[in-house]
Parts: sequence; structure tokens; C-alpha cells
Amino acid sequence: MSGLLLKNIRPFGGAATNILIRDGRIASIGSGEPENVKVEDGNGAIAIPGFVEAHAHLDKSLWGMGWHAHQAGPTLEDKISTERRLRRELDIDPRRQSARQVALAASHGTTAIRSHVDVDTDQKLWCFEGVAETRQHFRDVVDMEIVAFPQSGMMIRPGTLELMDAALAAGADVVGGLDPCGIDRDPKGQLDAVFGLAEKHGKPIDIHLHEPDALGAFSLELIIERTRALGMRGKVTVSHAFCLGMTDRLRVNALVEQLAREDIAIATTAPAGWPAPAADELRRAGVRLCAGSDGIRDTWGPYGNLDMLERALFIGLRNNFRNDSDVEYALHVCTQGGADVLKLESYGLHEGAHADLVLIDAETIPEAVAARPKRKLVLKRGQPIARDGQALITVE
Amino acid sequence: MSGLLLKNIRPFGGAATNILIRDGRIASIGSGEPENVKVEDGNGAIAIPGFVEAHAHLDKSLWGMGWHAHQAGPTLEDKISTERRLRRELDIDPRRQSARQVALAASHGTTAIRSHVDVDTDQKLWCFEGVAETRQHFRDVVDMEIVAFPQSGMMIRPGTLELMDAALAAGADVVGGLDPCGIDRDPKGQLDAVFGLAEKHGKPIDIHLHEPDALGAFSLELIIERTRALGMRGKVTVSHAFCLGMTDRLRVNALVEQLAREDIAIATTAPAGWPAPAADELRRAGVRLCAGSDGIRDTWGPYGNLDMLERALFIGLRNNFRNDSDVEYALHVCTQGGADVLKLESYGLHEGAHADLVLIDAETIPEAVAARPKRKLVLKRGQPIARDGQALITVE
Ligand SMILES: [Zn+2]
Ligand SMILES: [Zn+2]
Repeated sequence: MSGLLLKNIRPFGGAATNILIRDGRIASIGSGEPENVKVEDGNGAIAIPGFVEAHAHLDKSLWGMGWHAHQAGPTLEDKISTERRLRRELDIDPRRQSARQVALAASHGTTAIRSHVDVDTDQKLWCFEGVAETRQHFRDVVDMEIVAFPQSGMMIRPGTLELMDAALAAGADVVGGLDPCGIDRDPKGQLDAVFGLAEKHGKPIDIHLHEPDALGAFSLELIIERTRALGMRGKVTVSHAFCLGMTDRLRVNALVEQLAREDIAIATTAPAGWPAPAADELRRAGVRLCAGSDGIRDTWGPYGNLDMLERALFIGLRNNFRNDSDVEYALHVCTQGGADVLKLESYGLHEGAHADLVLIDAETIPEAVAARPKRKLVLKRGQPIARDGQALITVE
Repeated sequence: MSGLLLKNIRPFGGAATNILIRDGRIASIGSGEPENVKVEDGNGAIAIPGFVEAHAHLDKSLWGMGWHAHQAGPTLEDKISTERRLRRELDIDPRRQSARQVALAASHGTTAIRSHVDVDTDQKLWCFEGVAETRQHFRDVVDMEIVAFPQSGMMIRPGTLELMDAALAAGADVVGGLDPCGIDRDPKGQLDAVFGLAEKHGKPIDIHLHEPDALGAFSLELIIERTRALGMRGKVTVSHAFCLGMTDRLRVNALVEQLAREDIAIATTAPAGWPAPAADELRRAGVRLCAGSDGIRDTWGPYGNLDMLERALFIGLRNNFRNDSDVEYALHVCTQGGADVLKLESYGLHEGAHADLVLIDAETIPEAVAARPKRKLVLKRGQPIARDGQALITVE
């Protein structure tokens, strides 16, 4: 008889109980203490399901490569072109760097990741292939979704569409897009192409939309129109959607209502420095919200660490959440919210769910978010992948 | 011969050197290795001067008292009245709680604190006296300034002015104020009283100004006018100053210019959730900027930890700082910026300076801000007060 008994843990900070894990799943939850199983004493720690990092770029971190002074200029175009240059100059190898980030994510309790991966006419499928290798190699550590992401633009870089098509044929899970006005200068062209790829491959969509105010609202309307026309309800995510933070609240309310109707999800980093979607507005309207770190110490900026418990803090601070239930919602966005967007099967703390879970020493969920202690134990399919803030997997 | 040699440390992340400490001060910086001194090997750690927490409320944290669900309603008045009620109900003892926060601050490398302390007709001088006891008891651990702070209003609570006067006579260092329009409904009355107390006691001023937009701009003008008229140049701080984040940039520019002319300092928490002063605008204009945590897990909200290295991250995120020099400036605000506002003597890393310093394992200052490792060693006047993120002092 085999299995693992997590003794004296408190699911979501509630009453203490035990969780029995067998064959990578939660077999039972309750006070029972079966014999002939390994026992792990949680000492009253909170148990939550594994964090879901819903917006990362695993192909582009400088993590573990020593410090490189930030070089990019202030515009989005500066950052894109600086990165294209530095990828080869600094040897930012997508396979090695994505593996390092899997270990980093595991150390913080992240057990599922949606990663955008650059596809462009310089890198071609190099980034995709490197991250796909990591996905395969660490398939027992993290559930990884890869978004084929036209970082340098699709319409302004002939050949990119064909590369996107090839990446999707080769196993990319999601069709990416990026600022159809701001970058591609051809919103109709880009969005028709993105939705066309989604139809062809039967895959969902996740579009970076940094465009602010009325410009972003216009692009968002085009996305909503296509979602409705093509029956893509529930299969589209818009990342950032800064336009939903604009001051014209009537316009925002109308957009949010349409997002709810087409079940278009929003992914946010809860940025401190510029307008962003209000979590409570989306919540009230029933719009799925997930969260991500975006860049991790890359040529775009020095911050980021794939710690979704810290991201929950950022969501709380950004949205002025103070009540316990609001702070709990911030954590929900970083767990179940991500699972709802990635459509993770058997996710959560219930019998039959995958045993992807995190133990945290804290009295309550809000305390966990406020204090962000090292993760005590992280399990993936019932196997320990991190302990006391240290990943148990080896990477270069 | 006595002394302490910090070997192989890198001041501000520069070249490795040694710092010799004698009698609580930096005696010399250089490659020399004198004999007959205690040696502490920094192993190449970065050395910076102790962090300055320039806006705390040491009388009001719930730290170490178990988790209490947040109870206050959304308005400022709700928070003030909820707190007045819970102080006695939960036994938030100012002496005990301020001592706990000194230990917490020390663990993060904070060696100087400006704390606002409530003075009102319910608590009278209870909060002041408790924090003053802590100031005395831990005078070798932290330089503490106490602001007599009329949290519940001054004009709307007759008797408060006299209590403020008594607190200042009893050793409060700074005259506090709070939203002269929003709370006191009598900006002329409150500000005349605040500046009157400052004149009478020959002490500086630090005013909480949450009022947004045109209202806050009006109050700020009244503060500037009085600073000029009473010759208080360089002796006034405005905390928060959210109005400087308003969209009318012409108005903001004019205000910032006047702040520079009267050398009025700004204290910020770099809030993620609402408009706030832009650090680079203040910097360009030559306005002194310091930073603080504000509330630490109190009846106002669940966040905060007195970690000024984390605060530097928040400043960086809030201001979209990405270049190394900008991120270094964010840290500067949390060190020298605070020292410039508290007018700390002999502050910094130079011969003759007080040996208040922090060792951090990181390659560069921006990496330290991004990664926020546990502080390796914290010295106050040359004595270790924290090591590896643990305070070396004992509190209840
Ligand atoms: Zn992104
Ligand atoms: Zn305050």
C-alpha cells in the first residue's frame, strides 16, 4: 500500500485535517490516518492548490546569467529591438533559461505556467523549440502551455505568420497577438490573421494589449467582435488590457459587459505604474481574471521572480484590497483564476483533484499574502518539487 | 586596541574594500587590515548605510498579536473611528507594539525611523508615552523621531491642540498635521495651529495630505504660503501628497517648483492603487524625497513590514524605473533621502560617519532591489543588531 499522508494541514486556512494522496491525486480529505503510507506533518500549515502563472515569458529571462545593466530605451519598440539584439549577444538560450525559470517557479509553489514564446523572423522557432524542450523535460514538475507570440509584429514582418503557423503545428498551445494598432499598424489584418490561425488549429488565443485609452478600447472591440462572429466564446484571453484602466468609466463598463458576454478572460500583472483593469469590476461582471509575472529579470526590466504569492500582494495593493475576503480573492486570481483560464483539469483541493499543492506557514490566507513566507512544501502530482523555498529539481 | 573590521565588502556595489569601525563610527575605508580587531568577512556583499523609514506609525501595529480580520469601512473617517475603538478592545499597547516594530525594522536593516504617533482626546498621551519609552529603551538600535500626530483631527476635537502642545513639550520631535480640509474642515484653522506649535517649540512639521486633486493642491498651497511667511524653509515635510499625482500636470509643475523653492520635502509610500507624486519630477526639481511603510498590519490594512528594500522595489515599480541608475535612485530615497529629511548627522558610508550599515548579498544595487535577499548583517553604531534576516534584540 503506497501513498502520502499530509497530516495536520489547513485547506485554504480552514480547520486542520489530513489529505491522503495516491497516484498523484487527492484520494481523500479527512481526519483518517491510514497505515503504510508516508507521512508529512504540516504542523498546521495552510494548504492551497499550486499557483498558476498565467503570463510569463520563459524564453527571455537573464536569471542566473549575472547582472546586466538595463539597456533598452523607453518605448515598446526600443524594448523589442534591444531584446532581439541582446538575445544572441548575451546568449539568452531559451532552453536553459526556461529550465531555470521552471525551478524558480517551483520554489515559489507555481505548478502551472502559460508562457508566451517569441516567434519572429530572426529567432524563427528557436525560442519555441527551447521552451518546448523544457516543457517536455519538466512535464512532471509543471503543466506548461506555450503561446506562439509574434513579439516583433506579424504584419510588419512578412514571414512571421508562416512561422506562427509552424509553431502551432509543432505543438504551441495558444495563438498569441500583440497591439494590433500600436505594433502592427494594421488591426484588421493582424486580428484576422490571429483568429484565422486559431480557427485553423482549433486553439485558443491570448493577445497582449498594451494600447491605452481609446486606442486600446478600439482594439478590444475588434477582438470582441471576432470572438462573437467566430464562436470563440470562452477561448480568448486579453493580457494587460490597460485600456480598462482608463478614466472614461462608462466606456469601460460597456467593454467589461461585452467581455463577460463573450467570456473573454483578462490576464494582469497588477502594474503599479500605469492604469490597469480593476479586479473588483471584472469580478462583479463575472469576467475571468488571472495573473502573471510577465518579464522575469530580462532585457525589458529588472524585476519579476515568478512568485505568485507576491503577485497576489501586488493585486491587493493595486486594487486597494484590505478586507480579508478581498485579499483572499487576490490569491484566488493567482490560483483558481489561472486554472480557469488555462482550463486545467482536476485542479483544486478536492477528492480526485491532482495533488498539486502548496503548504504555507501562516495563520490565514491574508496573512500569507501580506507576509509571503517561504513555501514550506510544494507538491506536483503528489511529488515534492520544492521545500522551504528551495526547488528540489536540478537545472544548469 | 579594539574595533571591528568589515572585510571584503563593496560599498554601494562598487569595488571590494574593507571598512574599519571604531567607537561606533567608520574609522577608515581601504584595503588595510589592522591587527587586534574583530573581523567580519563580508564575502563580497554590498554595503549600504542603514535604511531610513521616514513614515511609520509605531503605536498602531497588530504585529505579533495574531491575525485580526480587517474591520474598517472604506472611508478615511471609518478607519480613524474603527481604530479608536479597537485600540483598547484589542489591547494594541503602543509600548509593546512599537518595540516589536523596532525589532522588525532592525531585521530588515532599518536604523532610523520617523514615527507618527496618535495624539487625541481618547488616547491623550498614551501612544506618545509608549513609543517614547521604546525610543529610550532601544536608543542604541534605532534613531527614532516622534511626530505628534492629531490622527482624529485637531479643530474638530477640542482639547487636541493642548495635548499636541503637551506631547511636544514632553519630547515629541515633530509637529504633525492631517488633511486640513478633509478631516478638520478648517484648513486655515488647522494649519495656523500646526505652524504655531512649530514656532512655539522650534520644531519641524510633517503633515499627512491625502486630499486628492484640486483640494489637495489648495491645502498644499496653504502649507507653502505658511512655510514661506514663517521662514520655515527646509523644515516642512508633506507625507503622501497624492494631489501631486493629479492629471493637471501644469498645476503639478507649479506646485513642485514652489516645493523646491521652500525646500519642502515629500514622504511617499509609492502606493500602487492611486495617484501619487512622480519621483523623477521631484528629483529633477530638487525636491527632497523620502519613503516609508506607513501602516504595518494594523486596523487600517493588512500589509506592511518596515522593509525599506521592498519599499525601494515599490518605488521602482510605481515609477516605472528600469534603468540601473533609476533603480539606484529608488534605493537612495530609502537611505540618504530619508537621512536628508530626518537631518541625520554623520550619515553615510564615509570616514567619520556613524557605523549604521547593512550588508546585502547581491551583485548590484538594482539586483538587491529586485531580489530583496535577507539582510546578511545590520550594524548600528558598529554593533550587530540583525543577522541573516533575524533581529538580535529581544522584545515581548
Ligand atoms: Zn508579456
Ligand atoms: Zn501615515
